[in-house]
Amino acid sequence: MSENEISIKKETPFFQPLLNIKMSPIVKIAEMARQLEPEYEAKHGSKFIHLERGEIDLNTPKEIINAINQKFLEGKTKYPKSGGELELKKRIAEKLRTQNQIPDIEPEDIVVTLGGQEALNLSFQLFANKVGAGFSPIWSVAIENFFPYSNITFLEVPLNKDFSIDYESLESVFHRIDFFYLNNPQNPSGKVFSKEEIERVVDLCKYHNVFLISDEAYEHIIFDGKTFTSAASIAAEKGFTNVITTYTYSKSFAATGIRVGYAVSKNKKAISLIGAAQYTHAAGAPTAVQLGLVDAYDVDLSGFIAEFQARRDALYNGLQKIESIKVNKPEGAFYMYPDFSEALKNKGLQPHQLMDVLIENGVIVVPGSAFTKQGYFEGYARLSFSAVNVEQIEVAVERLAKLFS
Amino acid sequence: MSENEISIKKETPFFQPLLNIKMSPIVKIAEMARQLEPEYEAKHGSKFIHLERGEIDLNTPKEIINAINQKFLEGKTKYPKSGGELELKKRIAEKLRTQNQIPDIEPEDIVVTLGGQEALNLSFQLFANKVGAGFSPIWSVAIENFFPYSNITFLEVPLNKDFSIDYESLESVFHRIDFFYLNNPQNPSGKVFSKEEIERVVDLCKYHNVFLISDEAYEHIIFDGKTFTSAASIAAEKGFTNVITTYTYSKSFAATGIRVGYAVSKNKKAISLIGAAQYTHAAGAPTAVQLGLVDAYDVDLSGFIAEFQARRDALYNGLQKIESIKVNKPEGAFYMYPDFSEALKNKGLQPHQLMDVLIENGVIVVPGSAFTKQGYFEGYARLSFSAVNVEQIEVAVERLAKLFS
Repeated sequence: MSENEISIKKETPFFQPLLNIKMSPIVKIAEMARQLEPEYEAKHGSKFIHLERGEIDLNTPKEIINAINQKFLEGKTKYPKSGGELELKKRIAEKLRTQNQIPDIEPEDIVVTLGGQEALNLSFQLFANKVGAGFSPIWSVAIENFFPYSNITFLEVPLNKDFSIDYESLESVFHRIDFFYLNNPQNPSGKVFSKEEIERVVDLCKYHNVFLISDEAYEHIIFDGKTFTSAASIAAEKGFTNVITTYTYSKSFAATGIRVGYAVSKNKKAISLIGAAQYTHAAGAPTAVQLGLVDAYDVDLSGFIAEFQARRDALYNGLQKIESIKVNKPEGAFYMYPDFSEALKNKGLQPHQLMDVLIENGVIVVPGSAFTKQGYFEGYARLSFSAVNVEQIEVAVERLAKLFS
Repeated sequence: MSENEISIKKETPFFQPLLNIKMSPIVKIAEMARQLEPEYEAKHGSKFIHLERGEIDLNTPKEIINAINQKFLEGKTKYPKSGGELELKKRIAEKLRTQNQIPDIEPEDIVVTLGGQEALNLSFQLFANKVGAGFSPIWSVAIENFFPYSNITFLEVPLNKDFSIDYESLESVFHRIDFFYLNNPQNPSGKVFSKEEIERVVDLCKYHNVFLISDEAYEHIIFDGKTFTSAASIAAEKGFTNVITTYTYSKSFAATGIRVGYAVSKNKKAISLIGAAQYTHAAGAPTAVQLGLVDAYDVDLSGFIAEFQARRDALYNGLQKIESIKVNKPEGAFYMYPDFSEALKNKGLQPHQLMDVLIENGVIVVPGSAFTKQGYFEGYARLSFSAVNVEQIEVAVERLAKLFS
């Protein structure tokens, strides 16, 4: 072998898309906060208020834990069925038909995945090397992980300041794309898209023959008794089957660490490829955990949702009183995405200084820039109320009021 | 939009590599057997003997089940740490240093995965669109799933009839490849590569600057007190760090359905990319399951291994008495890969008729063709003794003897 050949091989890099994946900015911020907290505590005698993580501080329902443990005791520790345990898929199909109003769903239209994350990553992988679009702001993992992993070119369609849709901007991307990504309820804005908005999106997808990937991870966390509409339900009414919807048990049941979700589609090719990719990748979610979730949708979630609504109220009502902070009222999920531009300007600060000034004042957030790659929403930040109680929220509001009033 | 543009988009296929993934031939055979079994049973008054699956019929150790359940009860249902729970990784690092004799392994050199399957799939994905090689026969999931998924061109290096290495054939591929895949103990042959054989492979990898991916899923299932050698242990002696080794809890603990394994490498870039890809794909294995495995390596496996050895003995001793079947004695794992060519020829049958004639005679196997894409080992079949007891093996041997003696 020649020296030349050796040097060529030495330079051969690993698969480029993997090199393009970024570590989550949220994890980085959480790590930084952890390092800075002792100093803050020593100086101020109080702790940081952590509004940066998407983790949930409430307990996973006991019924679910006990059901999983029972399945482990029954010896359900052998290979899961490819695509998911039939007993679970039957129950999911029933839930999709009755709760989500998606007609004609059968177990074979479903693939049980490792959380909504795997369901989404595999859905996007169907469109590797292609072009997609979705509303901005957008979940950081989508832009930092999923799209680089599948080498997807992604066009952000910015929502208006009140998080309504700019239809002109929306329509302008459709001739260029192979899929549209809708996250409803939306992370980080807390927006819940209305039936009418979803209809417009579905119509565009149908007209332009574009797949719709609908990420409904927060389907159950809906406030003020508002109705949640699944995109696939509307698509079915319109005879449009090129929809993949992804769900998870992580958010509805405060069970981010049990790693079970699912993808559903009436497009037989799409769901069969998701199944094949999932088998290839990890051979499925743990059997006992899948079987332990069969009765999960019988758990009463009203107290759980009421708690998030109380937190939303405390945060929204508090921030509303600070004139320079512009905030939309979240209708679902457990995030708020306020505009700090004016507040920063009043202090003579630049948007990129937001996080630092908030850390100095004991409130940890994720800068708005983590939720866009195209520079929209400068001066915004995501505030999560998933892992803080009302009392902690009140302290955070007090600190922000002191800083910005 | 023009009609033309619509028709172009309509033809846009999904990501081609996903379309190339094949359903496992083993699953297909198991399914076919399930359909044919009632008829066989009605006719013969006895059941099929199932030697086709890699599933294990023994129980997962109670200690492990109880430890996992305890972690669920303790509320360990929140996001796992990216790359794996530190407590588990510390214990794995200790196991790798002491049991596998791989020096200097620290938790940051390890990524906890969804079974060995995810560890392997991600290792191969590092070399997407490149060329690799490995010994033939080779695990069907590698050739039907992993390599198509990552669009890898894979060169099979056939082992000799006695499963020894043909070094000339081995050396001839190295100038063309980016990685070499070694599965030790090997599925489907039951071969355990010796220290000397591994040394030769490592030397070639080092000389040609080729990554070594060592799949050691069956590391604990070793017969006759033979010593098992980890490739990374030898590589470390030679100062070669471009090795990724994958392990699983599935086989050692009869726990195929708990879906936990790990990848380990002293190549920092490789292990960090595996971690990033794993986070992207599924965000990790369930937290409680990971933590429940911390003490797994303290479980006594001697009875478990003795059972497989007894099965191996029953199958090997039985088949040896059938002159026309050529069989090598498996040294590990729970597979045997005998040559039925002569037996078939004596009956006037072609290699592709093997499975059918065995099904007619109540013995289900996987044809040898499932373990090669390049047509080696015609007339061979894989017989698994992972899910049959000694008595069932004796019945299978009787049926084969009646057919081929």
